[in-house]
Amino acid sequence: MKLTKRKLAHIVFESNDRPSRTFDVVLLILIFGSVIVAVLDSVTELKEEYGRLFFTLELIFTFLFTIEYVLRVWLTSKTFRYVSSFYGIVDLLAILPVYLSFFVANVQLLTVVRALRLLRVIRILKLGRYLAEADFIRRSLKASMTKIQIFLFTVLTIVLIMGTLMYLIEGPAAGFTSIPRAMYWAIVTLTTVGFGDITPQTPLGQFVASLIMLMGYAIIAVPTGIVSSEMAKQKSPEFHATSKTCTYCGQDGLDKDAKFCKNCGHPVDIKP
Amino acid sequence: MKLTKRKLAHIVFESNDRPSRTFDVVLLILIFGSVIVAVLDSVTELKEEYGRLFFTLELIFTFLFTIEYVLRVWLTSKTFRYVSSFYGIVDLLAILPVYLSFFVANVQLLTVVRALRLLRVIRILKLGRYLAEADFIRRSLKASMTKIQIFLFTVLTIVLIMGTLMYLIEGPAAGFTSIPRAMYWAIVTLTTVGFGDITPQTPLGQFVASLIMLMGYAIIAVPTGIVSSEMAKQKSPEFHATSKTCTYCGQDGLDKDAKFCKNCGHPVDIKP
Amino acid sequence: MKLTKRKLAHIVFESNDRPSRTFDVVLLILIFGSVIVAVLDSVTELKEEYGRLFFTLELIFTFLFTIEYVLRVWLTSKTFRYVSSFYGIVDLLAILPVYLSFFVANVQLLTVVRALRLLRVIRILKLGRYLAEADFIRRSLKASMTKIQIFLFTVLTIVLIMGTLMYLIEGPAAGFTSIPRAMYWAIVTLTTVGFGDITPQTPLGQFVASLIMLMGYAIIAVPTGIVSSEMAKQKSPEFHATSKTCTYCGQDGLDKDAKFCKNCGHPVDIKP
Amino acid sequence: MKLTKRKLAHIVFESNDRPSRTFDVVLLILIFGSVIVAVLDSVTELKEEYGRLFFTLELIFTFLFTIEYVLRVWLTSKTFRYVSSFYGIVDLLAILPVYLSFFVANVQLLTVVRALRLLRVIRILKLGRYLAEADFIRRSLKASMTKIQIFLFTVLTIVLIMGTLMYLIEGPAAGFTSIPRAMYWAIVTLTTVGFGDITPQTPLGQFVASLIMLMGYAIIAVPTGIVSSEMAKQKSPEFHATSKTCTYCGQDGLDKDAKFCKNCGHPVDIKP
Repeated sequence: MKLTKRKLAHIVFESNDRPSRTFDVVLLILIFGSVIVAVLDSVTELKEEYGRLFFTLELIFTFLFTIEYVLRVWLTSKTFRYVSSFYGIVDLLAILPVYLSFFVANVQLLTVVRALRLLRVIRILKLGRYLAEADFIRRSLKASMTKIQIFLFTVLTIVLIMGTLMYLIEGPAAGFTSIPRAMYWAIVTLTTVGFGDITPQTPLGQFVASLIMLMGYAIIAVPTGIVSSEMAKQKSPEFHATSKTCTYCGQDGLDKDAKFCKNCGHPVDIKP
Repeated sequence: MKLTKRKLAHIVFESNDRPSRTFDVVLLILIFGSVIVAVLDSVTELKEEYGRLFFTLELIFTFLFTIEYVLRVWLTSKTFRYVSSFYGIVDLLAILPVYLSFFVANVQLLTVVRALRLLRVIRILKLGRYLAEADFIRRSLKASMTKIQIFLFTVLTIVLIMGTLMYLIEGPAAGFTSIPRAMYWAIVTLTTVGFGDITPQTPLGQFVASLIMLMGYAIIAVPTGIVSSEMAKQKSPEFHATSKTCTYCGQDGLDKDAKFCKNCGHPVDIKP
Repeated sequence: MKLTKRKLAHIVFESNDRPSRTFDVVLLILIFGSVIVAVLDSVTELKEEYGRLFFTLELIFTFLFTIEYVLRVWLTSKTFRYVSSFYGIVDLLAILPVYLSFFVANVQLLTVVRALRLLRVIRILKLGRYLAEADFIRRSLKASMTKIQIFLFTVLTIVLIMGTLMYLIEGPAAGFTSIPRAMYWAIVTLTTVGFGDITPQTPLGQFVASLIMLMGYAIIAVPTGIVSSEMAKQKSPEFHATSKTCTYCGQDGLDKDAKFCKNCGHPVDIKP
Repeated sequence: MKLTKRKLAHIVFESNDRPSRTFDVVLLILIFGSVIVAVLDSVTELKEEYGRLFFTLELIFTFLFTIEYVLRVWLTSKTFRYVSSFYGIVDLLAILPVYLSFFVANVQLLTVVRALRLLRVIRILKLGRYLAEADFIRRSLKASMTKIQIFLFTVLTIVLIMGTLMYLIEGPAAGFTSIPRAMYWAIVTLTTVGFGDITPQTPLGQFVASLIMLMGYAIIAVPTGIVSSEMAKQKSPEFHATSKTCTYCGQDGLDKDAKFCKNCGHPVDIKP
């Protein structure tokens, strides 16, 4: 089998046959590898011992990612559209750090740019797009989005009012040094995270905090209720299989108790 | 187009055409602006540097809110009813702080009064009244209200009994200095916030605390369950508007894209 | 209207007409009053200032509760059954502390006995028995009870295994001084309370703790799911009203789309 | 009744008649007893006082478990399959520690091996296999497994990106000494555990932390929604056994107490 440019493009950009899926899996392993090296490199003890190994691996990953980037630029029919797209920029950022390190001395900046490589992990999630299950979660969340936005806006208003109230009650002595900081505390409390780095000290402050916590107790039910009822509404993939298709006009998604097609009025044959 | 008093009143009080919606949006920006300035003004570092700018902005906001308040009082046909209403008082409180600052020296009191301006944010939420989605959440919560009240009452009884128990077990040494404080701890624990400012030290106290936490684990399911089942029961706006009924056989719950009844095959009349 | 013994018994034990409901409300106020006094009496600053007032109120409450107890013993036809019942013992414990204080010097013990008066609050919850909404929550929880017990048992097994694991990994240095204490930490973590009084210090401990937390994330969904699905299954009071009753045999709870009674086969008349 | 080898095997391996259920219950008590002794033995104060008692009990438990193990090996028809199975290895590990203690001096290692005895608790859960309710939870979780895996993968990606972000913003000064440690903090925060051992100190860090917490607020709804909707879909055991189908018109989903079909009025045949 001769490897034409067209076949190569298919391997790089599609994922519906064996060679293109192999390409995707190899790429996934490389991305995971580079992310793990970056994570381990941030641990001081490991960097001291394996710093040279990490740097060598970094060079290898950069080399392979550079080949991949060049391939993508060369193979795509719409070069500019790919280069200026989100994935195009992320792919470029994935290979820049090492090349920049030859010119720039500021190591801290390089770490920041290098961390951007983590965004490539999103490419992994893209694979999940074809999974019916992932799609189910995505559809449920998308359908709930407006409700969740309204909910978050209401939560932020409560946080603003409660934060200001606690700032006035407790004041700087208890760590409520400013309204933004008091709002940070209100979010920590309302979401039931409760770090405990800032806590109310006065009896009145503890009373108001108790009210906020009980409010959070009732409020946490809302997003859960929204998503649950959306998920119950969303037809799951299995369920689809039990819906009927009209043999006359091809309309699908008919209810399973339908006797006539809702589109053309033709009687629906009952499945054996 | 001449701007009559009636047209102006329409712009100020309604929000169903272009000029009145523009008025609402400008008002929203002003309210957000004044809230953001108040929030930033509470940060000591920012106040030291931009204190004068914040004060000037405060004056401008107060001037504009004063015009708005005068307009509302002048335009409404029921002056007393507006002035004595919740929104009327909040609107007045929004402009008072600066005027009071010319007479009162107590700055702390002014901050408190000024913070009340935050209540104007609720006016923003009023806009959401017409959003079907927000209405859906509101109806679900309202329908669950009795159940949530009973639930909160039960929680408070548990908090009272458990707080007293922990006060007797742990005592002042571990921070449980009084029953109210022990009840504050019980709320912090039962809501799974867990600040960690007060924690049981004795083995018996830790055992009872474990029971409270496992109880909270089972209890947190109740409000969620209540709201979820209410939301599932509440028909969402789309569903309301779209389900059709067959005029021939009376079969209801037909899909909105149905042209023929799935029960009898009769064409479904499209609603006007 | 003459107050016979029978009428008095009706007032004290029932709650279905005006005088007996008045009796219940007065009793509720007294119970709440005595609980609030006991709570406030535990605050050192308040006790120092209002100690005498609290003691006088305590005497008054004890006097009134004594009358109530004597009334109940005198009026009931089954004296022994009441005295030995749960409520009978709680009612007796409510009046004992003051009488004991004349004989016993150990104040700490008295506080414990006095705290038992809080159990009378449960009597308040008894009133809720007739509320349809409270009954709905109770039925849902009762129906879920077996599932929640199995769930709690599984959670305790996870706590036991994870606690032992963390005890072996972290050891006394990080606060995991014994397996019971490590189990306490595991409960604090799994229920997402997270006090932070004991936290893993080693990288391995933090890794295992992360696993426990993510597990808790998935596990917290189970009781919520159980209660939610039970509540969705439980027919709410409103729903009952839409079910039909057969006019022929009196069978109720028929589905609203029923054309024939499922008990006697008689056609069901559609409600006007 | 003579006790043949076959009868004994039935008692040891089955649990469907009285003697075999008695055997299971005795075994359960022994397992619980040995676990409780191991747990209490880890408390320094208790070990000092009751160390000898604990050791004696340990010997007795080991002796009884040894008999049980020998019985199982002798009675099973597939000896190798049992010895090499998960339960076979766990049963062997349950008796090893004491025997090893005669040869090995390393006490720490012995504690680790001994802790493995806790795995025997899983045998207890096996009993629950026949409980319809436990099976209901298991089926619901199994059906949700794919969705929960995708969900956990998404959470881990968020943890990776947010951890790196916080590591760059806060740095070692606030406790974010490495990316793995920052990821540990992100998990602690996203799951709303919130130990408070590491907390953001800079305003920017607190802002990003607030975003993570609000995200966690919305995200926690997802697994709950998944499990809830699965549980609602799963038919509970009662429902399964009881819904009838009309043999005349084919209408299904009839109530279990229905004598006549609600659709056609035909008598419903009671299932044998």
